[in-house]
Amino acid sequence: MTEPLDQERTTDQLETIGRALDSGMFIHVRRMLQQMRPGDVAWLLESSPAPSRKVLWQLVDPDDYGEILEELSEEVRDGIIRLMDPEKLANALEDMESDDLAYVLRDLPERLYRQVLTQMDEQDRLRAEQALSYPEDTAGSIMNTEFITLRADVTIDVVLRYLRLRNELPEGTDTLYVVDKDNRLLGDMSLASLVVQAPATTVAEAMDTQVEAIPLTMSDVEAANLFERHDWLSAPVVDENGILLGRITIDDVVDIIREEGEHSMMGMAKMDVDEDTFAPVLPSAKRRTIWLTVNLCTALIAASVSNMFEATLSQLATLAILMTIVPSMGGIAGNQTLALMIRGMAVGHISDSNARWLLTKEALVGLINGLIWALAIAVVVSIWKDSIAIGLVIAAAMFINLAVAGLAGALIPLVMRRFNIDPALAGSMALTTITDTVGLLSFLGLATLLLLN
Amino acid sequence: MTEPLDQERTTDQLETIGRALDSGMFIHVRRMLQQMRPGDVAWLLESSPAPSRKVLWQLVDPDDYGEILEELSEEVRDGIIRLMDPEKLANALEDMESDDLAYVLRDLPERLYRQVLTQMDEQDRLRAEQALSYPEDTAGSIMNTEFITLRADVTIDVVLRYLRLRNELPEGTDTLYVVDKDNRLLGDMSLASLVVQAPATTVAEAMDTQVEAIPLTMSDVEAANLFERHDWLSAPVVDENGILLGRITIDDVVDIIREEGEHSMMGMAKMDVDEDTFAPVLPSAKRRTIWLTVNLCTALIAASVSNMFEATLSQLATLAILMTIVPSMGGIAGNQTLALMIRGMAVGHISDSNARWLLTKEALVGLINGLIWALAIAVVVSIWKDSIAIGLVIAAAMFINLAVAGLAGALIPLVMRRFNIDPALAGSMALTTITDTVGLLSFLGLATLLLLN
Repeated sequence: MTEPLDQERTTDQLETIGRALDSGMFIHVRRMLQQMRPGDVAWLLESSPAPSRKVLWQLVDPDDYGEILEELSEEVRDGIIRLMDPEKLANALEDMESDDLAYVLRDLPERLYRQVLTQMDEQDRLRAEQALSYPEDTAGSIMNTEFITLRADVTIDVVLRYLRLRNELPEGTDTLYVVDKDNRLLGDMSLASLVVQAPATTVAEAMDTQVEAIPLTMSDVEAANLFERHDWLSAPVVDENGILLGRITIDDVVDIIREEGEHSMMGMAKMDVDEDTFAPVLPSAKRRTIWLTVNLCTALIAASVSNMFEATLSQLATLAILMTIVPSMGGIAGNQTLALMIRGMAVGHISDSNARWLLTKEALVGLINGLIWALAIAVVVSIWKDSIAIGLVIAAAMFINLAVAGLAGALIPLVMRRFNIDPALAGSMALTTITDTVGLLSFLGLATLLLLN
Repeated sequence: MTEPLDQERTTDQLETIGRALDSGMFIHVRRMLQQMRPGDVAWLLESSPAPSRKVLWQLVDPDDYGEILEELSEEVRDGIIRLMDPEKLANALEDMESDDLAYVLRDLPERLYRQVLTQMDEQDRLRAEQALSYPEDTAGSIMNTEFITLRADVTIDVVLRYLRLRNELPEGTDTLYVVDKDNRLLGDMSLASLVVQAPATTVAEAMDTQVEAIPLTMSDVEAANLFERHDWLSAPVVDENGILLGRITIDDVVDIIREEGEHSMMGMAKMDVDEDTFAPVLPSAKRRTIWLTVNLCTALIAASVSNMFEATLSQLATLAILMTIVPSMGGIAGNQTLALMIRGMAVGHISDSNARWLLTKEALVGLINGLIWALAIAVVVSIWKDSIAIGLVIAAAMFINLAVAGLAGALIPLVMRRFNIDPALAGSMALTTITDTVGLLSFLGLATLLLLN
């Protein structure tokens, strides 16, 4: 009988295995690992500090290597592969679906890659080379070539007898494809439709001819958006002549959607999306250097803006105290717009036809925000610093900066996309540089013009 | 014959419909809408500026209302529902799966909700009330109750004949469930397994008894993580006695994973995840007020920290110019750690057993970052400002702030989780307040102690 999953079970498992490892109860851990599914073992490895992973991997059943490897994230997998000899690795890869095989092989160091390939049998090698020939991030790179095709003129009864002879369907099969003798896709038939058909019906009568096939060269993200929009479980992939080459299954789409979300979130925080949560200290520190360097540069740009107003600042220290407020508000307001744009682009909502409407809207939101917050800061500062003049100066600067922030937040991602730059990564840094500069320039500039004489 | 999807087709469609709408060719638009699938119409509505949506909805075929509504995002759907009268809405809801029905009904204003419910027939009303009885964000709220159950003692042949009599399976069916007379889940059989079984085999022989059933009260996010980890297409939902109540299908899981990603990304940018990209100006501006208010408070806290050093700043204007650098670097470094933690928590990688390891690691990364950037800023500032003393002061402040940033970035989300606060929303604001305060305090404090006398 089946048992409902205990909600706390998986977390408990993590605790138990962690404790057993710490106290050296390796045989106990090995037994626990054998009872876990490959997906759970992959999750356990990803949740373990780097040093424990090595020990855990040695306790894993080698028969499960392949299935676990294909579930691991890139960084963690690369670390584990470095622990394996080429022969064992080649064995582990043999049962993989072609897209997962390419996914693992693509990142191997050149030398290891060649060693693994020579260890494989002829058929697997060809399959691997074929899968690797499709460019990364295209539909081709995430499709697998294990699927079942039917001819249109046979009956359902024949199809069922054929399937019974096969005894097992390729993993994730929900649909059978109908092709002509040149392998051109004519239609498809879901298993859900197959099982309700009368045995004497022909495939031609029962099949669905309104199949939307994914072209080989479509981007994987766009393909994932189509899956999401149409609630597909799988979709056929065809070349420009309509020849069926493979199929994409929902499990790979789920990975892409998960990655897209993490990429945007980590990008906004200036973090490498590939960084392994439990990586050792030094590689972690190294990975974060790039964006900290970029940020130091933008911080120095901001400092050199205020440097132009050194005379003003030395006359009126109050300005120094207040000068961080306007850039801070501009940064937040601009990033709000930026996030909205990045999300809209990720799901394919933003095109040339609606971009201008959106730009106008966000510019207007910026103007309204500008009015609201100019008023608010004028009141706060006039009272706090007992100076209506300073209150008015900071209000004017706030209005300018928030109006600019709205416009820049909408414009930057549109411009970046045109030049094929990823706004999730570079957008917020460019934006902050603008809002910092405009914020400081307008506040200190207006103060110099109006308050000093 | 099937045609490969034109990669540009959907975007072109958007342009074409946009242009046709603008030039008032409503009959043309209506015809185009009729040829589109519900998912595409939903996507078109979401990609259209708020004013166009109203026109588009009037051109949609009322028979498609239900299917389109269930594909729409919350915000857009609420806007459209306000355009419909209760009777039409009740009709549209009738064919929906129970989870989608609850999803739509849950957000209706009380009065409209009652009106719609009285328009429904008895059976649909019961179904809706049942679905609404499960708390939001639990497995119960995303399960649907349309599924097929089998008895263990019948043969595959009988099962096939039964399915043929039914003529159609519930949407998204990939697995049939085997239950006893009390509806207790005994096992399951995928369609892929059903079609390869010999007709004389009994369900008991062919079924998989190692089914992992989702408990009714599990959180929807946790259930989604399980789907992802195990590459499930659907999973049964049971109560505490193992009674089968419904099933969760992958399409809802995909929506949850997409939402989770958007929630983290938008949260990092202080943006309401529900904000509709093409909402009108005023509601958009209003939605952004909360976080801008919070940010104004934190900016004022930072200003009041530097206010404590007014005397120092008026003596040495250079400090005012440099004082934004250390908080800026602390904010970025801290947010990097925060993003890593938020991602790790979202996929369930972080538990009590590895939290301490992670905290130590991030604190060490903070120390190493502190050393690197203290050195870098010391060199830059010593040369720029021609003062080794100021260079040393800013270096010391940088080291302190980056060390604190690493620790705070790891600690804040752990503490927030304990108190059930969502770190994706509140985390970065809390963090920035800390890094701003510590950065200004340490830089201006050390400068006051060491540079003035």
